[in-house]
Amino acid sequence: MIKSRSGIMLILLIAVGTISVLFTAFPEGIDAQQEENTFVTHTGAVVKTTGEVLDPLYTSATVEFDPMEYLRDFNYGRILQLDDGTTLREYTIIANDDEIMEVSPGIFYNVWTFNGTVPGPTIRATEGDVVRIKFINNGEKEHTMHFHGIHPAGMDGVFEPVGGNGGQFVYEFEAGPVGVHPYHCHVMPLEEHIVHGLYGVFIVDPKEERPPADEMVMVLNGLDTDFDTENNFYAANTIPFYYQHHPIQINANELIRVYVVNMVEFDPINNLHLHGNLYKYYPTGTDIVPSFYTDMITLSQTERGIMEFEYEYPGKYLFHAHKVEFSEKGWVGIFMVNEDENNVDSEGYGT
Amino acid sequence: MIKSRSGIMLILLIAVGTISVLFTAFPEGIDAQQEENTFVTHTGAVVKTTGEVLDPLYTSATVEFDPMEYLRDFNYGRILQLDDGTTLREYTIIANDDEIMEVSPGIFYNVWTFNGTVPGPTIRATEGDVVRIKFINNGEKEHTMHFHGIHPAGMDGVFEPVGGNGGQFVYEFEAGPVGVHPYHCHVMPLEEHIVHGLYGVFIVDPKEERPPADEMVMVLNGLDTDFDTENNFYAANTIPFYYQHHPIQINANELIRVYVVNMVEFDPINNLHLHGNLYKYYPTGTDIVPSFYTDMITLSQTERGIMEFEYEYPGKYLFHAHKVEFSEKGWVGIFMVNEDENNVDSEGYGT
Amino acid sequence: MIKSRSGIMLILLIAVGTISVLFTAFPEGIDAQQEENTFVTHTGAVVKTTGEVLDPLYTSATVEFDPMEYLRDFNYGRILQLDDGTTLREYTIIANDDEIMEVSPGIFYNVWTFNGTVPGPTIRATEGDVVRIKFINNGEKEHTMHFHGIHPAGMDGVFEPVGGNGGQFVYEFEAGPVGVHPYHCHVMPLEEHIVHGLYGVFIVDPKEERPPADEMVMVLNGLDTDFDTENNFYAANTIPFYYQHHPIQINANELIRVYVVNMVEFDPINNLHLHGNLYKYYPTGTDIVPSFYTDMITLSQTERGIMEFEYEYPGKYLFHAHKVEFSEKGWVGIFMVNEDENNVDSEGYGT
Repeated sequence: MIKSRSGIMLILLIAVGTISVLFTAFPEGIDAQQEENTFVTHTGAVVKTTGEVLDPLYTSATVEFDPMEYLRDFNYGRILQLDDGTTLREYTIIANDDEIMEVSPGIFYNVWTFNGTVPGPTIRATEGDVVRIKFINNGEKEHTMHFHGIHPAGMDGVFEPVGGNGGQFVYEFEAGPVGVHPYHCHVMPLEEHIVHGLYGVFIVDPKEERPPADEMVMVLNGLDTDFDTENNFYAANTIPFYYQHHPIQINANELIRVYVVNMVEFDPINNLHLHGNLYKYYPTGTDIVPSFYTDMITLSQTERGIMEFEYEYPGKYLFHAHKVEFSEKGWVGIFMVNEDENNVDSEGYGT
Repeated sequence: MIKSRSGIMLILLIAVGTISVLFTAFPEGIDAQQEENTFVTHTGAVVKTTGEVLDPLYTSATVEFDPMEYLRDFNYGRILQLDDGTTLREYTIIANDDEIMEVSPGIFYNVWTFNGTVPGPTIRATEGDVVRIKFINNGEKEHTMHFHGIHPAGMDGVFEPVGGNGGQFVYEFEAGPVGVHPYHCHVMPLEEHIVHGLYGVFIVDPKEERPPADEMVMVLNGLDTDFDTENNFYAANTIPFYYQHHPIQINANELIRVYVVNMVEFDPINNLHLHGNLYKYYPTGTDIVPSFYTDMITLSQTERGIMEFEYEYPGKYLFHAHKVEFSEKGWVGIFMVNEDENNVDSEGYGT
Repeated sequence: MIKSRSGIMLILLIAVGTISVLFTAFPEGIDAQQEENTFVTHTGAVVKTTGEVLDPLYTSATVEFDPMEYLRDFNYGRILQLDDGTTLREYTIIANDDEIMEVSPGIFYNVWTFNGTVPGPTIRATEGDVVRIKFINNGEKEHTMHFHGIHPAGMDGVFEPVGGNGGQFVYEFEAGPVGVHPYHCHVMPLEEHIVHGLYGVFIVDPKEERPPADEMVMVLNGLDTDFDTENNFYAANTIPFYYQHHPIQINANELIRVYVVNMVEFDPINNLHLHGNLYKYYPTGTDIVPSFYTDMITLSQTERGIMEFEYEYPGKYLFHAHKVEFSEKGWVGIFMVNEDENNVDSEGYGT
C-alpha cells in the first residue's frame, strides 16, 4: 500500500484566522500550475495550492488500488464456531483518513479508507452467522461503521463515535437479512466522511446458496476533487473509466451476478444501463424472486441490489450511467464476453 | 392557533412599480440584521426586509403546530349513512394563506394551510365510502383541493378554482382505490401553492382491515424560506429536526405502520433510510402484498407508500433522508424503541 | 417536410479563434432582439445571435411534426417471411442533423432526426421476428442506432459509427425481449446527439397479443434551446403544451395503453402523474403482470414502461410531470374522456 516517492509539492493550509501550516507531501510527476488556487475545504480550512491536489494532507501514505482485484474479492472473515454450532466470522477493519490516492493520472485525492482502499473490503457472511468486526480507528478524526441491515441500536455506529489514533470498537450482530447492504462511516459531517471513501459492501448470503455464477461487486461512487460539493469524477469502483480501459472478462452463456451499491454523494440519483442485454434485478437482494427485468435502474444513495444476466453473443458491451454527465466523467465500463471459458482471446469480437 | 405577540419588525413591500405598503407584523425575539435584503417573491412583489422574514404578510394569525400530535391524528369525518347503507363521511376543510409559522427558532414562514396546519388534516375513509368535503376558502387567493385517486373530472380540483374570502365548493366522490394518496391545492403557480403548505394525506383503508399496528403519517416536505426556488429546510412533518429532539416512542415487537408521502418541491427526489432495520414497502399502498423489503426508497413528488416494520431490539434508531443535504437541513428523526408497552422509560438505551 | 420560407436572420458563427462564418437561414416571423447574445454551442463554436435561434444552422430544411399523428403511429416495417417461417421486418431509417423545427411559436431549434421527426418512428415487431433496419446517415456528423434490448455486440450501434453524407449500416437482430425499449444514437458527445432528438421507441409485442386497447406512445423529452445544458422546454412528444391545447380524445370504459419512455437529458429524473385515476404500470413492459398500481412513477433517462388504465367518468383530465418545473415548461397534457365511441362531442364535460 505504501509506495516510495520523492516528488514534493507545497500545499499551504491557512486556518481560518492567521495560523499557517506548511505541508510537504507529494508524489512525483505533478506539474505545478502557474496560478495558485484558493479553496475552502470541507473542514473549513482555507487551502492554497499550485497543483491539482486541493486537500490538506497529513501523511505520506499512498493508496494503490486495483479495481480488477476488488471486483471479485470477498472477505469471508476468520471462521469460528460457537458452542451452539453457529458460525462466527471475525473481521478486522482499520480506518484511516490520511491517505492519498491517484484516482486519475495526475489527480491526487485525500481518501479516507477502510483497510486501505476505497471502497473498503466486501464483507460476506451467511444469514444467521454471527458477525464480529474488530474496528480500529487509526485516523485523525472520529469514525464508525454503520451497517444497513438488522442489528441492535448499540451496534449501529451512530451514537458511538470511535476516537482516532487507535480507538477501538467491536461490532457484533447476527447477519441479516439476506441481501446486499452498504456499510459506511456515520460521523458528521456525513457528506465528508462518505465522499472521501469510508464505505463498502456487506453481502448476506441465503442459507440455501444462490445458483453458481461469476460474481462481482460494483460500488457506484463519485469524487469531489475540488471541494465544491459537486462530483468531478464518477466511477464503478472508484477509478474513472477503469473498466473501459480494462474490460471485465466474462464468458458467454455463464450466469453473471453483480452486487451493485450506489454511494454517490451530492447527486440525487445514479443509474445503470447494460448494453445488448437486460438483467433480472433484485432490489436490495432481499427477495429470491427478481422484481424487474430491465436494462436501466434508478438508485439514490445506498440503494442497491443484485443484477443477474447472461450474454448469448460474444463481444464488447458497454455498461454505464445513462445520466450522461456521469458516464462522460468516468462511470462507464466494458464487459468483454468471451466465447467460452477455454477461449480467453478477447480480440476480434465486437468491433 | 392565535398566539399573542408584541415584537414588531418592518417589512417593506414594494410592488413592481412605485406603490409601497408597510406591514407591521411580527413576533418578538427576532433581531434585525444590519443590512437590508431585497427579494422578489413568488408573486412578483419586491420585498425589502431587515429580518429573516421575507414574505409579505397579510395578517397576524400565527400557527401553532405539534408534529407529535399530527403524527398519529386521523380525521375520519362525521359519519352518516346513505339509504342504501353506504357510509357517508363529511369533512370541513378551510383554506388560508395568511398565516405565519415559526418553523425553526427565529425562522418565520408565511404558511398556506388546510385547517390551520401544514400538512393539513389526514383524511381517512374506507374503500367504497362516500367522501363529502365542504371546502371553504378563507384565503386571499384562489385555492382548490386536488386529490390523487379515482374521482369524476368535475371533482378534480383543477378546472374549478374556488375564490378567496369565503368561496366554497363541495368535493364528493367514492373513496378509492385503497392506498395512501396526497391531496393538494392545484391552483397555478403550483410550486407556490405547494411549497407554502397546501397539502395533506388521504388514506383509503381496505374493507378488510389491515392488521393492528401503531400507525403514523409522515409527510416529507421542504421550506423555501428565502424564495430562491431551493429549499432551505427539509423535514418529516414540517418542523426541521423535530423528531430528533423529540424521538417517536414505539414499542419493540409491535408492528409499526407509516404512511409516507413525499411533497418536497423543487428537488427531483427524496428518500428514506431506516436504521438497524428494514421495512416492507407497499408503493402507493394499493396492493396488500409488499413490493420491497428494504431500508431505502426513492420518491419523487407525490410518490408515497406504506412502510411496515417491527424492532426486535430496544434503543435509539435514526431515520432520515440519505440525500445527506436533506438530513443535515432537518429531515432526520429518531425512533425510541421501548422494551415493551409498560416500560416507557426511554433512557438507558442506545447510547 | 420542407416548407418554403423567406424570412432571413443573421447568425454569426465565430469559430474559436478568428474565423467567421455567415449563415443566412431562417423562417419568417422571427423578430430580432435589440441586443445580441453570445453562446458557446455544444460543438465548441461561439455563436452570436440577435434572435431566439442559437444553433449554427447548416441547411434550410424545416420539420413539420404532428404530435397527434405521432401518438398512435406504429411502423411495423415491410413484412417478409424467411424460409423457416420466421417473420422478417424491414425498416429504412434515415438520420439527419441539419433540420430546423419550430418547437414553440417563435422558438426554432436545430433538430437531429430519424426519418425527419423527433422522436423518430415507433418501430414495432413481435418477439422472435427478425428486425432488419437499413440505416442511412444523411447528416453531416457520424450517427448510429443503439437499441436497448438483446442483440449481438456488433449490432449495438456503439463501436460502429456510421459516417455522414450517405453512410450506411444494416442493423439486424431478433426482436426481444418483449417490452418497450428506446433506441437512440450513441455517438459522442452523447448528450448532444440525444438532446437534439436522435431517439425513438421500439416496441416488442408478445406472441400472444395483449388485450385490445387504444394504444399510444409518449416520449418524455426536453429541449435545451440555449445550450446551457439545462432544458428550456419539456414535453410529452416534443411540442410543449401540445396535448393541453389539443386534448387526446379517448373513450370512457375503454382500455388505454400508453408506451412511455423518458428521454430527458440533463435532469436526473422525470415523472408522470395521471389525474382522477391510477394506472397499472409494467416497468420496461417485460412482464405480463403489472408491478404497480399508482398515479406517479419516477423515471431516469431511458427508463420506460407500459401504463394501462380506463376512465369511468367522462371529462377533462390532466396528465403531467409532478416535477412542477417540467409541467410549467410544457410537459402537461389533457385526456378528454368521451362518454362512448359514438359520442365524440367533447364539449360540456369537465369544466
